[in-house]
Amino acid sequence: MTRRDLLRMIGLSAGGAAMYQAMSSLGFAAESPYKGSPKLQGAPRGASVLILGAGLAGMVAAYELRQAGYKVQLLEYNARPGGRNWTLRGGDTYTELGGETQHCQFDRGLYINPGPWRIPYHHRGLLDYCKKLNVPLEPFVQINYNAYLHGANAFGGKPQRYRTINADYRGHTAELLAKVAQQGKLDAQISKEDQAQLLDSLREWGALDKNYAYAQGPSVSNRRGYDKLPGGGLSAKPTDSQPLQLHDVLNSQLWRNLTEGEIFEFQTTLFQPVGGMGRIGEAFGHELQGLIHYNAKVTGIQQDEQGVTVSYVDARHPGSTQKAHGDWCICTIPLSILSQIPMNVSASMANAIGAVPYAATVKVGLQFKRRFWEEDEDIYGGITATDLPINNISYPSSDFNSKGKGVLLGGYIWGLNAYEFTAMTPEERIRKAVEYGSQIHPQYKTEFENGIAVAWHRAPFTMGCFASWSDELRAKHYGNLCQIDGRIALAGEHVSYLPAWQEGAVTSALDVVTRLHQRMVAGGAA
Amino acid sequence: MTRRDLLRMIGLSAGGAAMYQAMSSLGFAAESPYKGSPKLQGAPRGASVLILGAGLAGMVAAYELRQAGYKVQLLEYNARPGGRNWTLRGGDTYTELGGETQHCQFDRGLYINPGPWRIPYHHRGLLDYCKKLNVPLEPFVQINYNAYLHGANAFGGKPQRYRTINADYRGHTAELLAKVAQQGKLDAQISKEDQAQLLDSLREWGALDKNYAYAQGPSVSNRRGYDKLPGGGLSAKPTDSQPLQLHDVLNSQLWRNLTEGEIFEFQTTLFQPVGGMGRIGEAFGHELQGLIHYNAKVTGIQQDEQGVTVSYVDARHPGSTQKAHGDWCICTIPLSILSQIPMNVSASMANAIGAVPYAATVKVGLQFKRRFWEEDEDIYGGITATDLPINNISYPSSDFNSKGKGVLLGGYIWGLNAYEFTAMTPEERIRKAVEYGSQIHPQYKTEFENGIAVAWHRAPFTMGCFASWSDELRAKHYGNLCQIDGRIALAGEHVSYLPAWQEGAVTSALDVVTRLHQRMVAGGAA
Repeated sequence: MTRRDLLRMIGLSAGGAAMYQAMSSLGFAAESPYKGSPKLQGAPRGASVLILGAGLAGMVAAYELRQAGYKVQLLEYNARPGGRNWTLRGGDTYTELGGETQHCQFDRGLYINPGPWRIPYHHRGLLDYCKKLNVPLEPFVQINYNAYLHGANAFGGKPQRYRTINADYRGHTAELLAKVAQQGKLDAQISKEDQAQLLDSLREWGALDKNYAYAQGPSVSNRRGYDKLPGGGLSAKPTDSQPLQLHDVLNSQLWRNLTEGEIFEFQTTLFQPVGGMGRIGEAFGHELQGLIHYNAKVTGIQQDEQGVTVSYVDARHPGSTQKAHGDWCICTIPLSILSQIPMNVSASMANAIGAVPYAATVKVGLQFKRRFWEEDEDIYGGITATDLPINNISYPSSDFNSKGKGVLLGGYIWGLNAYEFTAMTPEERIRKAVEYGSQIHPQYKTEFENGIAVAWHRAPFTMGCFASWSDELRAKHYGNLCQIDGRIALAGEHVSYLPAWQEGAVTSALDVVTRLHQRMVAGGAA
Repeated sequence: MTRRDLLRMIGLSAGGAAMYQAMSSLGFAAESPYKGSPKLQGAPRGASVLILGAGLAGMVAAYELRQAGYKVQLLEYNARPGGRNWTLRGGDTYTELGGETQHCQFDRGLYINPGPWRIPYHHRGLLDYCKKLNVPLEPFVQINYNAYLHGANAFGGKPQRYRTINADYRGHTAELLAKVAQQGKLDAQISKEDQAQLLDSLREWGALDKNYAYAQGPSVSNRRGYDKLPGGGLSAKPTDSQPLQLHDVLNSQLWRNLTEGEIFEFQTTLFQPVGGMGRIGEAFGHELQGLIHYNAKVTGIQQDEQGVTVSYVDARHPGSTQKAHGDWCICTIPLSILSQIPMNVSASMANAIGAVPYAATVKVGLQFKRRFWEEDEDIYGGITATDLPINNISYPSSDFNSKGKGVLLGGYIWGLNAYEFTAMTPEERIRKAVEYGSQIHPQYKTEFENGIAVAWHRAPFTMGCFASWSDELRAKHYGNLCQIDGRIALAGEHVSYLPAWQEGAVTSALDVVTRLHQRMVAGGAA
């Protein structure tokens, strides 16, 4: 009996779920840390959990614990659910540390996501909550062959289409390898039979001609594009384009941008929620209505053998301190903030909390009078990469080919440049993004209308974008950060191997509710 | 003054359209055969054009000629507009040559496109009509890194994820080239400086380690995927996967499927209309309401110096012959049909009409009880390629992550296999598609509900899928096919360098109305 016969039999007799299980064990599917919603049975009657932060981690924890029968309440700094799951739309207001307030002036239906903006196909936990909460998804276009690769010093600053650099790098390197194979220079490495297959495959891979050359002609134009596109009727014959020289491609450094779509998290198919990433946080907030106490700024976390007491003030008008209590506490406050809040936990956890730096990133959204990137340049979604400080320009993956206005992500800035941009006023950030972007799209100068800029180190609820783990930090502190410390446990992207990703928040929350539930059941909870 | 300064000035002084023109002439944009809607001025009063076929070519011609002031009427064989632009939905009925009638039983909202199903970003003419007619678009996912590559004799018939074959082929070939560079075997071909850049770039391109080896580790897992995915909390550490051997990848032949997304017409960003490709034909039909005479089967086309007279019968109940007349005629009837209709044109055009064979293709749509490809296998859109006769399985690029049923394209069959499938009854085609597909997705056996199969050689309105031009045929006949013959001119994908593509139909129609208008103006039309 073959493996396939076995599967067929399992499917016939036991249905899809059993078959999937069997497929996994036979190696058809990779093991995932997400095993579906946890089955939390036997919650001690009346046991309560206080959750700090109504971002994705906090709300996933609340959703599952409430389901299991626990009494749940959440304290949230912002006036909205979601945390970094956040969409800025026209009419929204945002005040950063330092006091600068921005009023988003985007037209109706236009937005940017200052935080997470894409969902990989293998982020099963997050995808499953989107399904449960009826949050519709649409593809997020990461790689667009017609978007640009741009280097200030490459090709005289003239942006190149992704497809041309990609085809030419691939073609020239395939030709080099084919040539050395033909010269017998691979004989020591691989068999003659494999070399014959290799030559066949390189011709296909690199669009090489019958002599294994990467040279101007229809096959190469069918990769890098044409000088004149094929069409219909008389005079419709296409004109082939001329490949760049390998030297020029290598020297341009633009090859550095050819592998982003190969990375596990950026591989097709990627998603975004229809209407903005914030739709997920909003849906969770709606689901948990009445459980979330907004505008609550936590000022202290105190545990004893009976439970956990949290002090907080009104984030808008800090005045008298109030208290909230839970038998247990799940704290999802980012370490950048938590490290500044008095809390009585073990030294090992306190050290872990204080050890992890947060990444500084800046995002700028820019509204334009028309979707010139589509109308003038045939760029529909995707990302233009540049070595200018803005790093990239991302075109909207929604409302394709529509009339009217559009909002670009005019910069996603990290590293040293992010610190520089963080130090600027929001107006300066926007002005700079327009200035840099117009080197790639001259239309910026005439089409720009308004913008908004979020510098994550100035976000009062995170003071940074995400936990920036190094291998050394992880070896020393990660395990300690995951422990249930007395009656307190942490969750969030910072307690995961997926920093910056919402799936890290989701799976860390599921891990923590599962372990905490076991502890509560064993201890009788209260 | 740099080119960029010049552009900026043009943009500031003359606006976007002038800037685009300038960008094109400076080489920022490729020349397109589509120049926007033609400006047809000075149409002779009362001049009439009879258009045969209300597919995209015929309807584009009608739209533009009506706009220009001509009297237009269309004769259409089917009871609907669109021709091969066609979506089959639940409740639809289709009768093929031979008399077999299929009643589509898909659930509400589910469909297949028997004909064209994707729109490349550079098909500007078609995209522009979608914009004009308010047909909303969404991305069509062509390449899905998590879909399968399958060979009946590759890896024991076990489907491989696209990402693993892609990463392993890329990585192993990058390693081979890096090794020969390190051994000095490229010295004759490229400079030492370029070799240093080449090594850097190969490490990035192939995910090679510091010794330029393609070997198990985090960077390689970040391309091909993990044995255990990273997650959150305790025990969330990922496990790296083990690359396949180069020999096994080469021998599997699965590398033949790695370049489809590199092909100009399948590069991102691809589109489909929301709700099915047929939305475009339906929108045109609505726009041209009252001008299209449906169920009209053309039986003869006769021209003289005064005009063109077309004989037709009712396609449903062929009875008495009726006549329609135009001063001029644009005929978009596929050559496969037109070659059987008496028509007095020159020998050179008649020879051209008779010379071009039509491709046989078959498409099969299959409805399943649940979207198991998403639920069990994390496959959202995209295409699984196989060397089985079904060629590929295409997952729907809509309603991602939704609950409930779904329709797959269960086979897109061409070449010799298509003839075999065409000879079967629709039921047999469906049964075969389910049988083959279940070798890749064992869930087919338990989840299949119903299907529909279109064999294009049996479609009464085309008798084939598209004009199958060879270079020799094109050299001999294409020019003749494009000529205005007396008062008759042809349009359609068969009169283009884009056979099978709707853009070929659109641009051939625009070419023909432009040339015919010039002729009509010059000759006073009637």
